[in-house]
Amino acid sequence: MVKVGIFGATGYTGVELIRILSKHEKVEIKYLSSQSYNTKAISDVYSSLIGFCDKVLEEVDFQKAMSECDVIFTALPSGHASKIAREAVKKGVKVIDLGADFRFDDYSVYKEWYSGDYEDYGDIKRVYGIPEIYRDDIKEAQVVGNPGCYPTSVILGLMPLLKNGIIEGNIIVDSKSGVSGAGHNPSYNNMYAECNENIKAYNVAKHRHIPEMEQELSKIFGEKVSVVFTPHLAPMTRGILSTMYCKLKKDMDVNTVYNIYTDFYKNEYFVKVLKPGNYPATKNVYGSNFCHIGFEVDKHTNTLIVMSAIDNLVKGASGQAVQNMNIMFGIEENTALDIVPIYP
Amino acid sequence: MVKVGIFGATGYTGVELIRILSKHEKVEIKYLSSQSYNTKAISDVYSSLIGFCDKVLEEVDFQKAMSECDVIFTALPSGHASKIAREAVKKGVKVIDLGADFRFDDYSVYKEWYSGDYEDYGDIKRVYGIPEIYRDDIKEAQVVGNPGCYPTSVILGLMPLLKNGIIEGNIIVDSKSGVSGAGHNPSYNNMYAECNENIKAYNVAKHRHIPEMEQELSKIFGEKVSVVFTPHLAPMTRGILSTMYCKLKKDMDVNTVYNIYTDFYKNEYFVKVLKPGNYPATKNVYGSNFCHIGFEVDKHTNTLIVMSAIDNLVKGASGQAVQNMNIMFGIEENTALDIVPIYP
Amino acid sequence: MVKVGIFGATGYTGVELIRILSKHEKVEIKYLSSQSYNTKAISDVYSSLIGFCDKVLEEVDFQKAMSECDVIFTALPSGHASKIAREAVKKGVKVIDLGADFRFDDYSVYKEWYSGDYEDYGDIKRVYGIPEIYRDDIKEAQVVGNPGCYPTSVILGLMPLLKNGIIEGNIIVDSKSGVSGAGHNPSYNNMYAECNENIKAYNVAKHRHIPEMEQELSKIFGEKVSVVFTPHLAPMTRGILSTMYCKLKKDMDVNTVYNIYTDFYKNEYFVKVLKPGNYPATKNVYGSNFCHIGFEVDKHTNTLIVMSAIDNLVKGASGQAVQNMNIMFGIEENTALDIVPIYP
Amino acid sequence: MVKVGIFGATGYTGVELIRILSKHEKVEIKYLSSQSYNTKAISDVYSSLIGFCDKVLEEVDFQKAMSECDVIFTALPSGHASKIAREAVKKGVKVIDLGADFRFDDYSVYKEWYSGDYEDYGDIKRVYGIPEIYRDDIKEAQVVGNPGCYPTSVILGLMPLLKNGIIEGNIIVDSKSGVSGAGHNPSYNNMYAECNENIKAYNVAKHRHIPEMEQELSKIFGEKVSVVFTPHLAPMTRGILSTMYCKLKKDMDVNTVYNIYTDFYKNEYFVKVLKPGNYPATKNVYGSNFCHIGFEVDKHTNTLIVMSAIDNLVKGASGQAVQNMNIMFGIEENTALDIVPIYP
Repeated sequence: MVKVGIFGATGYTGVELIRILSKHEKVEIKYLSSQSYNTKAISDVYSSLIGFCDKVLEEVDFQKAMSECDVIFTALPSGHASKIAREAVKKGVKVIDLGADFRFDDYSVYKEWYSGDYEDYGDIKRVYGIPEIYRDDIKEAQVVGNPGCYPTSVILGLMPLLKNGIIEGNIIVDSKSGVSGAGHNPSYNNMYAECNENIKAYNVAKHRHIPEMEQELSKIFGEKVSVVFTPHLAPMTRGILSTMYCKLKKDMDVNTVYNIYTDFYKNEYFVKVLKPGNYPATKNVYGSNFCHIGFEVDKHTNTLIVMSAIDNLVKGASGQAVQNMNIMFGIEENTALDIVPIYP
Repeated sequence: MVKVGIFGATGYTGVELIRILSKHEKVEIKYLSSQSYNTKAISDVYSSLIGFCDKVLEEVDFQKAMSECDVIFTALPSGHASKIAREAVKKGVKVIDLGADFRFDDYSVYKEWYSGDYEDYGDIKRVYGIPEIYRDDIKEAQVVGNPGCYPTSVILGLMPLLKNGIIEGNIIVDSKSGVSGAGHNPSYNNMYAECNENIKAYNVAKHRHIPEMEQELSKIFGEKVSVVFTPHLAPMTRGILSTMYCKLKKDMDVNTVYNIYTDFYKNEYFVKVLKPGNYPATKNVYGSNFCHIGFEVDKHTNTLIVMSAIDNLVKGASGQAVQNMNIMFGIEENTALDIVPIYP
Repeated sequence: MVKVGIFGATGYTGVELIRILSKHEKVEIKYLSSQSYNTKAISDVYSSLIGFCDKVLEEVDFQKAMSECDVIFTALPSGHASKIAREAVKKGVKVIDLGADFRFDDYSVYKEWYSGDYEDYGDIKRVYGIPEIYRDDIKEAQVVGNPGCYPTSVILGLMPLLKNGIIEGNIIVDSKSGVSGAGHNPSYNNMYAECNENIKAYNVAKHRHIPEMEQELSKIFGEKVSVVFTPHLAPMTRGILSTMYCKLKKDMDVNTVYNIYTDFYKNEYFVKVLKPGNYPATKNVYGSNFCHIGFEVDKHTNTLIVMSAIDNLVKGASGQAVQNMNIMFGIEENTALDIVPIYP
Repeated sequence: MVKVGIFGATGYTGVELIRILSKHEKVEIKYLSSQSYNTKAISDVYSSLIGFCDKVLEEVDFQKAMSECDVIFTALPSGHASKIAREAVKKGVKVIDLGADFRFDDYSVYKEWYSGDYEDYGDIKRVYGIPEIYRDDIKEAQVVGNPGCYPTSVILGLMPLLKNGIIEGNIIVDSKSGVSGAGHNPSYNNMYAECNENIKAYNVAKHRHIPEMEQELSKIFGEKVSVVFTPHLAPMTRGILSTMYCKLKKDMDVNTVYNIYTDFYKNEYFVKVLKPGNYPATKNVYGSNFCHIGFEVDKHTNTLIVMSAIDNLVKGASGQAVQNMNIMFGIEENTALDIVPIYP
């Protein structure tokens, strides 16, 4: 049994980790920390977990966590995970960080975008945690920087095109996210009466996920990719739909594109390529670790429009984190993640 | 392996059966019928099922279904199941009906409320399918009349009180249901723009679930129970919350009531009694087979207010149907149903 | 022109007052206070108001407000309005309080339920602000205690029955409210991801609106009325639907009840009695000052079920406050309030 | 008084026309047709209209309509309005068509995209009804082709840029619409359980509004404009947000762009340009005839991102139709349209 600890267990990614891990046949949840709710049982905070995980939340205690756990999931504000990771690695405890601390190849980019002034990674074996790209590296990683929700949807959607060099490197990405992406701390941004019957953009061309996307897409493409990125808040709890506008280098019909995608993802369990004419909908991946991809060719402008849908809390966060954990511990990759999307 | 067929596979209860059964380790789905979509794969109709169930939908064919299946789920308009059941029973095929055809002890009540003019049950061994009451009978049943969504929430909420005789037999039930309860056929009643930002009552004091509730509650109570019932349509997809107003026969505090409930349900996996001060919320059972029950005592009127929450498509329909199937086939009762509610 | 000030202009009832008053032909908005946003224009906080009210928000300054205004609306936490009112009355400035400070005939009831320890009203001419009951008194009032949202829906729904003495005095009220009723301060109770796809009761049998309802209903009935009250939070922004269960003293059919209602409300502009068979829906009064009332008789239990729908922010708060202001200043009662509900 | 008739009064644009016109001081509603509900009062179909418009719906009767009305609004399926208009014009009755029959300069484009095989306009004086472009022509028009909802949001958003020639002519438009845009006829596309908690694209690069946008944008620009257009269905009732990606011809900062917009729209009552840093939200124009526009410059790609928000049923349909009527009849343009958006 893999012994697991979670720092930040009562945030939405924390509770989603517990939903998944409490049914994982090879995992034992040993440690849950929460600043706001410690001494309460997690199932007293989230009644959905009654009977599945009734563990008591504890104060943050690194030493305790590391002595009890084989792997720690950190779901904390920027900057906290890097400190924990350094310690953990020394003791042979693996870390999967759901924040941004370990997502960047170039630490100065991280510092610039996240205004963080933390130590560099040093010689920690960190990997960017998209299994569909870095599966082999993840197997050996000490620390995984679990990708952002938007980058996951965008990278999976564009990878086959960039890898095959059939589109230009300047891409427009228009993403729509559910409100759970705004986290579990109450604020005007995630209030019901402000979000309901409302759609709006935020952080236009300034979102912190831009350098993350550009880093990974550029490596895939082999040359610099630039992304114009507009995230929107949509009136729903879960889900991200990214609509991506790509310039085709030469004429291409949907069937050719379809074949490129299906070939590229033929061995990927969690990526489903929809048949031409079908477009992804966030509801079709609700509660699951799947990414649905569809596309259309606009012949009159030679534009390829790619759409990808994920559940932001699963493939966009906690599900992918468990997928990474499975890989790191040699467990079958879809263990505990083989959840059928809930529809309707 | 239990071989399963579903008549009416593309309705919301049909697709929910498939979501659950496709992960059932002791079940093989052999037959799916659909009038509207036959020759299409179910996963072409519901993309959420891609990879989990890609079976092709067939025309209705009783003989084929019965020759291939050990059990048939019928999710059809009133009156259709009884005909199928008569045939099935002859061939030793069990039937679980998600409609109302087999819910009534007195067939004339059914005819009156459902304007049906069908043959009587005859000597078929039918059982009303609430396992928490009729588990032993269900084991032996040929045909199970799977309960209505509202009655399930109401019966589970009131049973411990009526069994212990601590309330009067005239009860007021105010229920709120998600729109999926209005089915998969488009109509003004289930249109987005009509239901969103809207709450309203319907079929006030006239809903067909009234005689069903009164039948079962009266048997539990040992004397006639009358129910004033107002169902409401709430702007959400899934979930039923029933708020029930009961006259206490004598003074009683919440802790005493709590003890009565916890004792009554101590062996029931799918019923969770919330600690005093906690009230059920539909979101806490979303996508799961659980029923959450809470209560409060209004001392100034000596009224006991009981609230119960279920997912109308799971414990209120398809989940309970699978629970019944498990019991009928000697399979552990929570197999494939041990799904953690999705929150948020 | 009536010169108007608003204390607490940036809460949801404050901004709703401005929506209505900015189109009031006999009103000039002179003063808006806000603790959180002072020095900003109200239209910088709420873009919906651009061009309609671009007034700058000011710090709380009683003296300034009173020297500039003929009437002050107070939309503040409990206890603040009574202090302001005492001063205002001395200077001949009228006060309409959207809080609870002036709702109670017996100040000790207020203190008990709101844990307030404020001075008594003394000889201020205060009136409970339901025009449909107290129109004549409101004309002469110095201070109006604007009713709570739930009591408005309940009192309007039950008044014709109690006045005519056709029901018993013990009534069950099951209300469903939109989330805007939980106010503009972010908290777990009004977060999108917590409220969406969710319905739940809160403050069961303990809500502060109970003594307010009982006070007014008892006066109407002429003897003590007791109310069992369960408020629910429904996944919508606006609207209250109250479903009320009344014991009929003798047999009565819906048409008789309909005639009682239509006769009772024949001169009331803002109360619409729906024809038998039609039930109110919150969406049908969205954004308007109307109250829709419908009902059904359950013959098998001799129960009369009454349903009333209002927009909690309009007839349940700011609209009724403006209605009161119109009466107090001899302006035609529906001025600025003759807004057609928005549907869909 | 302008005497008004509406063909197709019970669709969502029909009922929205009635909401607006019933408060129009210079309009008398004389005639309402409905195929599905004739002989019922409109307020029996839509309770929101009780007391505002209780007119009885009539069968379609051109002669009657034309003999009683000065202007007819047609809210009908494609192809029906052109026949009516020909007759109306002969009798001096003006027509405002909320469908697509009169939107195209080149009738063959209409035929191609709408598969219609109708007579050409002949010498009818038709005008495309965006007042912000064609105000003077609308004054003289016999027939107005009221613009599509998406084109309205897009044309208003891009016009200042194209008129000033500061962007390239190939533009990417990503629009999000509320479900009321899918009309009042029940179908899978507008069912609650299908749309709630869901966002998805439809008619990608194939939507009929593309040629309409390109026609108008090209005229403004003076050369061919091409639009890549992806409409999305968002889980809300009302509202369109269009996010538009434009290539700047040369470097430009947001303030310069802001000045161009404010100068361009300085005399337009219904267009509000938001200050830099503020982005439009559909909720801020809910129920109103306003268009809110905001923008951001992405310096690293020299892309100008423009966002515009309208209420699809008001500025995107019925409100704009009334605005056109006001212009055609010499009535002040914002009469009956000066509605404050409802927030929250």
